[in-house]
Amino acid sequence: MKQNKYDDAHFFAAYEKMPRSVQGLEGAGEWHMLKALIPELRNKHVLDLGCGYGWHCRYAREQGASSVIGVDISAKMLQKARELNDDTSISYIQMPIEDIHFPDSPFDVVISSLVFHYIQSFDTICKKVYDCLKPGGTFVFSVEHPIFTARSEQDWVVDDQGNRLHWPVDNYQVEGIRETTFLAADVVKYHRTISTYMNDVIRSGFRIQTVQESEPSDEMLKLVPEMKDELRRPMFLMISAQKEMTPAN
Amino acid sequence: MKQNKYDDAHFFAAYEKMPRSVQGLEGAGEWHMLKALIPELRNKHVLDLGCGYGWHCRYAREQGASSVIGVDISAKMLQKARELNDDTSISYIQMPIEDIHFPDSPFDVVISSLVFHYIQSFDTICKKVYDCLKPGGTFVFSVEHPIFTARSEQDWVVDDQGNRLHWPVDNYQVEGIRETTFLAADVVKYHRTISTYMNDVIRSGFRIQTVQESEPSDEMLKLVPEMKDELRRPMFLMISAQKEMTPAN
Repeated sequence: MKQNKYDDAHFFAAYEKMPRSVQGLEGAGEWHMLKALIPELRNKHVLDLGCGYGWHCRYAREQGASSVIGVDISAKMLQKARELNDDTSISYIQMPIEDIHFPDSPFDVVISSLVFHYIQSFDTICKKVYDCLKPGGTFVFSVEHPIFTARSEQDWVVDDQGNRLHWPVDNYQVEGIRETTFLAADVVKYHRTISTYMNDVIRSGFRIQTVQESEPSDEMLKLVPEMKDELRRPMFLMISAQKEMTPAN
Repeated sequence: MKQNKYDDAHFFAAYEKMPRSVQGLEGAGEWHMLKALIPELRNKHVLDLGCGYGWHCRYAREQGASSVIGVDISAKMLQKARELNDDTSISYIQMPIEDIHFPDSPFDVVISSLVFHYIQSFDTICKKVYDCLKPGGTFVFSVEHPIFTARSEQDWVVDDQGNRLHWPVDNYQVEGIRETTFLAADVVKYHRTISTYMNDVIRSGFRIQTVQESEPSDEMLKLVPEMKDELRRPMFLMISAQKEMTPAN
């Protein structure tokens, strides 16, 4: 299933109001950690899978990337990307990310932020990313953390007063569809274990470089005191991996 | 702190009754997964960190390892290992695993089962394991899963009838001491995040090969129906990693 909630008017209107939509990357609590995983981009060719408003595409250009391609399934998202983050060296392509095909491995870096948990076949995406990267190229992505996606409810356990008691985990080893809600709409996510994320990346021929689990920056903790709950369970998992210079053994 | 609960008579008496003590490896629910991470052992030199009763040492010999060294802090454990799993090619050494020092990188494989969550400095252990492995050698270990160790209680949330509702996670990003109980005794464990386990291994010069999170075998599920709860949250994390043939970049 190639899901495109963002072209639904109500859903898109709600998405438009999120801090990460209004403020761009600085409004995303995990950006300080994802950014640290992105390699030097100067004179690099960059692909962004599920580019949304194009914030990462613009960031890549600001860092000196020579060309950037942003792929997204949603026409509305790309319209917004062209309004907010237009640049002659950025190309926005409307396409499900499952369908990408770039022959001759043109990219140095492939980025994807918070998209793969909407994708049924992560292993297929890994192989496609591998194929479109130059040897030595880097694959950096974030997903909702398996601790977060394990239960369909994807919410805290609270007491009678609404105080957050703990984060519940259940059905962790049962991978697959989670019918859940996001921005008051029904969405389908795919829960995968941490080991599946790691092993699919490795089996595609990548070498894992760094693994991160989101926690708020000190700055964010001061600015938004409720962010301290983000220390209680990780909402996002981030991985950087390198395509082997020579084929994997 | 170098913790040695196993030389406490009460604790040891309780440990002796555990299925994994009575039945050996087949009594350990995660063995089928850990075993799959262990490379070919024929004619290999093997080190087992925290060897306990020596079951893994014996397994290594049964698989054709030419020599095996088992290290454990507990005299009682090693006495039992010598009773149960004696072999002229197995040497048992009483020593905290933090103190190992084997010059000239003599080992092909280093195994450690369910020990590192008792160790304060995992990064130091990783470096020591790296130093004592031959280039191309394999490091395979299991630990209690960070989902399991996050809260000191390390137990299910149950309803009034004692039914398990879900597994609670809290304070995940707060690494360090968890004063908890095991076999009715107070023990100190060290909680670390998944990213710390991964990154410490990688930064020591290893390449992650496979990551596994425990789930019961089909056989175990048939034999012990309650094991189905082990699909609800992973109790153990297992990693295999290879020492680079050439120094890491």
